[in-house]
Amino acid sequence: MKFNIALLAGDGIGPEVINEAVKVSDAIAKKFNHEITWTSALTGACAIDAVGVPYPDETHEICMAADAVLFGAIGHPKYDNDPSAPVRPEQGLLLMRKKLGLFANVRPTFTFPSLIDNSPLKRERIEGTDLVFLRELTGGIYFGEKGRRDDGETAFDNCVYTRAEVQRLAKKGFELAMTRSKKLCCVDKANVLETSRLWRETVQAMEKDYPEVTVSYEFVDAVAMRLVQWPNSYDVLITENLFGDILTDEASVISGSMGLMPSASVGEHTSLYEPIHGSYPQATGLNIANPLATILSAAMMFEDAFGLKDEAEAIRAVVNKSLEQGIVTEDLAAKGTKTYKTSEVGDWLVANL
Amino acid sequence: MKFNIALLAGDGIGPEVINEAVKVSDAIAKKFNHEITWTSALTGACAIDAVGVPYPDETHEICMAADAVLFGAIGHPKYDNDPSAPVRPEQGLLLMRKKLGLFANVRPTFTFPSLIDNSPLKRERIEGTDLVFLRELTGGIYFGEKGRRDDGETAFDNCVYTRAEVQRLAKKGFELAMTRSKKLCCVDKANVLETSRLWRETVQAMEKDYPEVTVSYEFVDAVAMRLVQWPNSYDVLITENLFGDILTDEASVISGSMGLMPSASVGEHTSLYEPIHGSYPQATGLNIANPLATILSAAMMFEDAFGLKDEAEAIRAVVNKSLEQGIVTEDLAAKGTKTYKTSEVGDWLVANL
Ligand SMILES: CC(C)[C@H](C(=O)O)[C@@H](O)C(=O)O
Ligand SMILES: CC(C)[C@H](C(=O)O)[C@@H](O)C(=O)O
Repeated sequence: MKFNIALLAGDGIGPEVINEAVKVSDAIAKKFNHEITWTSALTGACAIDAVGVPYPDETHEICMAADAVLFGAIGHPKYDNDPSAPVRPEQGLLLMRKKLGLFANVRPTFTFPSLIDNSPLKRERIEGTDLVFLRELTGGIYFGEKGRRDDGETAFDNCVYTRAEVQRLAKKGFELAMTRSKKLCCVDKANVLETSRLWRETVQAMEKDYPEVTVSYEFVDAVAMRLVQWPNSYDVLITENLFGDILTDEASVISGSMGLMPSASVGEHTSLYEPIHGSYPQATGLNIANPLATILSAAMMFEDAFGLKDEAEAIRAVVNKSLEQGIVTEDLAAKGTKTYKTSEVGDWLVANL
Repeated sequence: MKFNIALLAGDGIGPEVINEAVKVSDAIAKKFNHEITWTSALTGACAIDAVGVPYPDETHEICMAADAVLFGAIGHPKYDNDPSAPVRPEQGLLLMRKKLGLFANVRPTFTFPSLIDNSPLKRERIEGTDLVFLRELTGGIYFGEKGRRDDGETAFDNCVYTRAEVQRLAKKGFELAMTRSKKLCCVDKANVLETSRLWRETVQAMEKDYPEVTVSYEFVDAVAMRLVQWPNSYDVLITENLFGDILTDEASVISGSMGLMPSASVGEHTSLYEPIHGSYPQATGLNIANPLATILSAAMMFEDAFGLKDEAEAIRAVVNKSLEQGIVTEDLAAKGTKTYKTSEVGDWLVANL
């Protein structure tokens, strides 16, 4: 098969981790007889520096024309302490989500047996955790009308959802639950918010179409607690944009393998794959960043965007092997053991595929 | 001194835990020569059952006339699975907060040395944790305009804040930080929300009035992570209503002593003290609920509402003693050890004051 992949390396360590994911993807393609064409494009702070906007039209066209997008990370300290600056890297992220229609952010949290002791949680709490959040990504308070009144003394943000938006996301949730343990948790705040009541009634109405799926409804504050107490009691969770932002990040740290967690943003026009970690500016250019989350994001791309399960499994298997053999960057290395550079990890994976 | 305290026992185990807090408060009053008059009033499901509304006017008048309000818990399973029912116990809670002007919810999270191994977190992560959230409680998306459009197909919730509301809450935060380690963290989502930008600029402008306080600004998703990773790195945190709902509950479980955490809601007209746990309907009438969170809430009331620090310390000291000696309800008892009933714990505390 032939694929056309848009490559958005972004800022900070983005280019370094993307580099390794390209290496591994190319090696997989060779092994399984596929042909990948990579097309690089600018986004984030580097795009602001080059052309004045964080998500240039040209980048958008490249993404629209691609079979999938592989994304690194964006953000630069020079934009950090001024959230009201007129042009900011994150605006590019939001614009990209909206213009590409990336409505479902898929955020798995799972554990690696060899890394379980990195978790801040006790072993018996975290063991066996394997959950997936589907976060709605193009609606809610992120994209509603916002502004000021009364000479700037009053600020407002509108949270808006339509039934169709909820259905679209929930459908993905039910379908995903069907491929897993058939448990779906709808996370809302239906005791307070009207948008949450719309979420809940919409999901309730869809239950009859998936009679095998057991659906539970939990309030967002209760989920924030249980994620720390018994993360292994969850399977598939669906939720709106802002709740998803908070809970997926909370979930990402409980496994102790945050540097390894991949994600997908599934869209109307294309889908985007990216590590959940940030641009880690302090490490830029040092060849020390952990490339595994990006490489595992590429595995998700092979499986979900191209339907190539064997290729994805081959990547996951070699990543597991590298972890077991301690071929890891400094963030994962046990004290006193040898650490590997970003590029050395990628080389090892390619050599051992 | 003479105090007039409104007693809102509420539903489920509320009356049982309130009973013990009254016992202990009366014993403290006797010991320190104060006189307490308790006035009971209905709220929650029991108020709906009795008079059709969850926060009757009569209850409001009793609270307004009181020097402080001691609150148990509300909620009953018969209202649980229908968040769109026309009358619900939680509406009483929201109405009460609004009508009493309870704008600042004070939520400490701390550890008890003897209970630290109950935490889902590893000892080295949780040890030394002693933080306080100030959650804004009468504004934001909880109280903004909400409703439906397009024949019910579109739902909306408005989040609104005024500068004055932010200042009022932040002032409490700065003042609290001054009595502690002079560290204040403002939690927002200023990279996305206009209300958060108002929060941030308002707090920034207040920094000059408290030159000794070191203020940091963190995004809500980052705080959701760090609370699990390094809770002991926080001191005082201020935030808006919805973020506070999620984060204070997350914070409450990390200590492993959720059944012991007190809270205060400080208001314009009066202040309210309550355990953070719920009404625990399954345990109703069994005399097994842990009364310590309510008793420690009474201690907060003595200290903050009446300015009686010695009385508060005396309560905390005897509670610590009971924990050390294992005079605890079943939720805290080590396997195979004797457990005590709710009322037995209260009796022991009174006898050992
Ligand atoms: C950078 C920010 C706008 C973004 C979000 O809140 O969606 C980020 O936190 C994320 O979760 O991808
Ligand atoms: C019951 C509910 C309305 C309430 C809230 O969200 O404020 C509760 O979760 C709380 O935190 O006191």
